[in-house]
Amino acid sequence: MKKRILSGMRPTGRLHLGHLVGALSNWVKLQESYHCFYMVADWHALMSEYENPKGMAENSYEAARDFIAAGVDPERSVIFIQSHVPEHLELAMVFSDLTPLSWVERCPTYKEQLRELKGRELTTYGFLGYPVLQAADIALYKADSVPVGIDQLPHLELTREIIRRFNSLYNKKLFPEPEPILTKTPKLLGLDNKKMSKSLGNFIALSDSPETIEKKVSQLITDTKRIYLKDKGHPDTCNAFSYYAIFADEKMRNEVRNWCEGAAIGCTECKKRLAKILIDYLAPIRERRAKLSDSVIEDILRTGAKKARETASQTMDEVKRLVNLAV
Amino acid sequence: MKKRILSGMRPTGRLHLGHLVGALSNWVKLQESYHCFYMVADWHALMSEYENPKGMAENSYEAARDFIAAGVDPERSVIFIQSHVPEHLELAMVFSDLTPLSWVERCPTYKEQLRELKGRELTTYGFLGYPVLQAADIALYKADSVPVGIDQLPHLELTREIIRRFNSLYNKKLFPEPEPILTKTPKLLGLDNKKMSKSLGNFIALSDSPETIEKKVSQLITDTKRIYLKDKGHPDTCNAFSYYAIFADEKMRNEVRNWCEGAAIGCTECKKRLAKILIDYLAPIRERRAKLSDSVIEDILRTGAKKARETASQTMDEVKRLVNLAV
Repeated sequence: MKKRILSGMRPTGRLHLGHLVGALSNWVKLQESYHCFYMVADWHALMSEYENPKGMAENSYEAARDFIAAGVDPERSVIFIQSHVPEHLELAMVFSDLTPLSWVERCPTYKEQLRELKGRELTTYGFLGYPVLQAADIALYKADSVPVGIDQLPHLELTREIIRRFNSLYNKKLFPEPEPILTKTPKLLGLDNKKMSKSLGNFIALSDSPETIEKKVSQLITDTKRIYLKDKGHPDTCNAFSYYAIFADEKMRNEVRNWCEGAAIGCTECKKRLAKILIDYLAPIRERRAKLSDSVIEDILRTGAKKARETASQTMDEVKRLVNLAV
Repeated sequence: MKKRILSGMRPTGRLHLGHLVGALSNWVKLQESYHCFYMVADWHALMSEYENPKGMAENSYEAARDFIAAGVDPERSVIFIQSHVPEHLELAMVFSDLTPLSWVERCPTYKEQLRELKGRELTTYGFLGYPVLQAADIALYKADSVPVGIDQLPHLELTREIIRRFNSLYNKKLFPEPEPILTKTPKLLGLDNKKMSKSLGNFIALSDSPETIEKKVSQLITDTKRIYLKDKGHPDTCNAFSYYAIFADEKMRNEVRNWCEGAAIGCTECKKRLAKILIDYLAPIRERRAKLSDSVIEDILRTGAKKARETASQTMDEVKRLVNLAV
């Protein structure tokens, strides 16, 4: 039997190039070797967006559309919206009861997120429980592995601790301890050289039109030390070049480097070419997106939730018997 | 339309005389004027019992049996087990996100319970969220009122605060702010003069047989200042007399007072008479209990969960639209 994976994305905005190279492309590959559960984590999103959740429902459907357009195959993988599978909250409740407060308070990513998502009131009871819900998401499908970036390792370690505590309290190895699948992903900054983020609006969305991409790329901040056309550029510290490094082929990369270092073309021209490359790169996704009607997406998500619940309800039945809830 | 009430009991053991005079008798009366939702709060029980939840499922069914035997009418009131209605956890999740950590940390009953339920590991993430789940229990049925003891008023005030915050954030008066129905209930101590509690085993259960009642009452600690039969007793400080005060009629109460103060009968004889009174008092409950087969209870609870979900799912549909979850 194929090993199982669970991963998810929060529908806090439209998915962008950062999601694509950071996770989605990897999700597509993982389908070859794993039975994959890919989730739109709307309960997680609500934790940070509750003050202004406008557009979240739409973002959830659009995220699923992006998953599929990027190559996640609904025939092979289970694609679903977290809130459509009530068992997530049931297992989270059980895990909450056996998770010492100190474990969640000390979670290193908790304080980091409080810092990063500033301007919002996140010192709430719900947000503190973020890693408990995440542990439940993973354990509900008895996932063997979880694709993570290195910065998420502390979260996964907490999941493993919670699972060990459950297995030990009820004297049964019900859940496997999920292993990380560490994936090296290229670091892609936003158009303004800052971290790509919804609130900064500094990203290229997978759903952006060619015109929008052109316009956004024209605003990209390039080598600040290159002031005049005749100045030689420094591709290794230029954000535009980091996009070339990921999205262009080797030949084009070398050409651009030579142009830049030799001051052969200016930044405006360089960004026009980059825009074309990105438009071409996203073309197949854009085309698949256009073909996915609302009703097709809704069907896929309904079927996905049904499939997810088949596994989830079986797990919860076992859990409820172990903790003596009336089934 | 009748106003709505929600109340619940935790299935941490068998229901006893304390539950009967403290809540259940009142529940029966409230059916006259309210549309009542009476819940076996097994998620709440798990918060404190997770280390050893043995018997909890059985206690849940027995609690429902006690409700009905005591006079809660499944035709008029909705009787259900909390974990059979997944919407409780959904609304609790939404409320968690908008509840500042400080509100739950400062809840006066939180620290009190940590003290009272000592010997257990309760500094968990789940137990801290006790009042948030309680708020969800109440709001899910848009309860107008909640029968509470005076010591539970801080909890109810927190429920009202959470509801106000929800209504204000989403700019809609979706939930009424529940009013307390303060009920004066006689204070009944355990057989050992301590607070009646499962862990002390110092109670008379509604399901106890006449023989068990006789035996338990014979162990009741009476007036410690009355050492010999010829010593005059002090009914006003005698625990046996506090039982007479609640369960005997006035004539009998006066007789017992005179016997005791006049040293006419001894404590052993007095307790024999008390046992008879309690056995008679519980007789109708015991008889109704005996007639309620397992399958009848299961049917009532299945129907109850269905009825509860009709209201609960309607509420959650409104909530999900307001907070922009994909419905």
